[in-house]
Amino acid sequence: MNDPKAFVQEAVDRLRHDVPGRTIVAASGGIDSTAAAVLAERALGDRARAVFVDTGLLRAGEVERVEGLFRASGLAFRRVDAVDRFLGTLRGVRDPERKRKRIGAEFVRLFDEEAREFGTDRLVQGTIAPDWIESGGALRDTIKTHHNVGGIPKSSRLVLVEPLRDLYKDEVRAVARELGIPEADRQPFPGPGLAVRVHGPVDRDRVRRARVANAVVEEEVDRAVAAGSMKRPWQYFAVLLDARTVGVTGDNRVHGEAVSVRIVDSVDAMTATAATVPPAVLGTIARRITRELPGEVVRVLYDVTDKPPATIEWE
Amino acid sequence: MNDPKAFVQEAVDRLRHDVPGRTIVAASGGIDSTAAAVLAERALGDRARAVFVDTGLLRAGEVERVEGLFRASGLAFRRVDAVDRFLGTLRGVRDPERKRKRIGAEFVRLFDEEAREFGTDRLVQGTIAPDWIESGGALRDTIKTHHNVGGIPKSSRLVLVEPLRDLYKDEVRAVARELGIPEADRQPFPGPGLAVRVHGPVDRDRVRRARVANAVVEEEVDRAVAAGSMKRPWQYFAVLLDARTVGVTGDNRVHGEAVSVRIVDSVDAMTATAATVPPAVLGTIARRITRELPGEVVRVLYDVTDKPPATIEWE
Repeated sequence: MNDPKAFVQEAVDRLRHDVPGRTIVAASGGIDSTAAAVLAERALGDRARAVFVDTGLLRAGEVERVEGLFRASGLAFRRVDAVDRFLGTLRGVRDPERKRKRIGAEFVRLFDEEAREFGTDRLVQGTIAPDWIESGGALRDTIKTHHNVGGIPKSSRLVLVEPLRDLYKDEVRAVARELGIPEADRQPFPGPGLAVRVHGPVDRDRVRRARVANAVVEEEVDRAVAAGSMKRPWQYFAVLLDARTVGVTGDNRVHGEAVSVRIVDSVDAMTATAATVPPAVLGTIARRITRELPGEVVRVLYDVTDKPPATIEWE
Repeated sequence: MNDPKAFVQEAVDRLRHDVPGRTIVAASGGIDSTAAAVLAERALGDRARAVFVDTGLLRAGEVERVEGLFRASGLAFRRVDAVDRFLGTLRGVRDPERKRKRIGAEFVRLFDEEAREFGTDRLVQGTIAPDWIESGGALRDTIKTHHNVGGIPKSSRLVLVEPLRDLYKDEVRAVARELGIPEADRQPFPGPGLAVRVHGPVDRDRVRRARVANAVVEEEVDRAVAAGSMKRPWQYFAVLLDARTVGVTGDNRVHGEAVSVRIVDSVDAMTATAATVPPAVLGTIARRITRELPGEVVRVLYDVTDKPPATIEWE
């Protein structure tokens, strides 16, 4: 892509061609899907309906933030409260692949219902190039929101439309700016949300721990960036590990959980380097997480691996 | 303790009182047990026999290093090859408490045999104050070499003798210097060895991974200390986590294991702070571990938690 303005015009034309009637749009509040949703609305007006699903796996303040983002982008949307559905389908599931499949299946069911209700079989989503390149190109008919695992089953009528399919992340950002989407540099957040940042069993308590830890990492990195003590990283988040570990309170040993903090610099998510973070910032992150989750989280680790050999997300 | 010289004389007198005949000494090569062994030999001469057990859970080069240390300290010792025994008793065990109990039981059996063979029921060991204070003082009759969990069963005839029981770590170091033990500032290493640094199942492959990772951490920290880019930490080691994680090789995703690196500053092990390590050193550690264990370890984490709230060891 050379020119964002020209790309937008072409994408609008293509969307009008690919969507003869109506369509729903999977809108997570991430930069990719928000750009796709605004493109779809620009191309189709009322014939496109952005659907924002509250899975219960979102970050602290995320629902409010996403709704604010959509309003600021002039995007009409429908919010679906699906917290019980998603926590229910994840109950007792520990394996990350099975989690993604369960979440993906729940998204397909939900979008199927939404599409039927809106009178269409089309689903626009913000798939971008790294989403399918990393999986060996085998991602036709896959719902991005469940993190690129599993496909759309035969039982679904959904037909995918992917206007950003050939773009890389920096190109999507340029397009988002062209579309007048604010906060276009906000870090990416995976479709399955905190479920892939909660290793082992997913329940309300463990999602809450991951949510608090993520909020601390975001706040402290944002603060350090604002203070000029580090440059803004590509992505920064926390993962609740599936590992019991030992801590001390006074003279007593206590068992708690461990959190891994991931802060990376990257240009296109294809490769990444562990960010150089001032030790004082990491110390503050560790102290805040263990204090705000007393006895629940007793250990905080900083991921120092580049991609490759590690991925950005853990699982 | 005020004066190491006076302490040594008192300890020698007490040992002569507490050990009327012969004794064996549990000698792991750590600073505590080496000091206890040299004290016992000074008090009892040939009536004390230091027993060094090769559990198969030792660090790279540890057997040679410990034997060299004992020779340099003028300590006669007997080495017992128990690799198959220890790996056998750990087969299929994942729970850290059960691992310690199995290791403890194996040590008791082994020292029982050794004591019987040497014609005694006494076992000198290098318990120090933090070993029992941290466990709430409930550690009478506990074998330190299995990391302070479990006690000596009724079926054993062993009577413990603990000449360093009231000392803190810095005091033990002063005593060791007084006794002419070289490398007296060497970092502590837990009795159960790499078993507590291999979370989840313990087998030859996973012990090998923990051993390689530990050697990398020790080499790179030693190199950074020698180069003057950081001060010598209290303790520095690696832990192989019980967590599957994802990495990338070329365009392919691979599953591998994760390693946590722990480097702490401390005065007495009762409290500790995560050391400030130059990012370049952590980067080198991460790259070396993932390159020397290609496809086996794909992620390296640096533990940024102080004690409290975390302990120094993970489990």
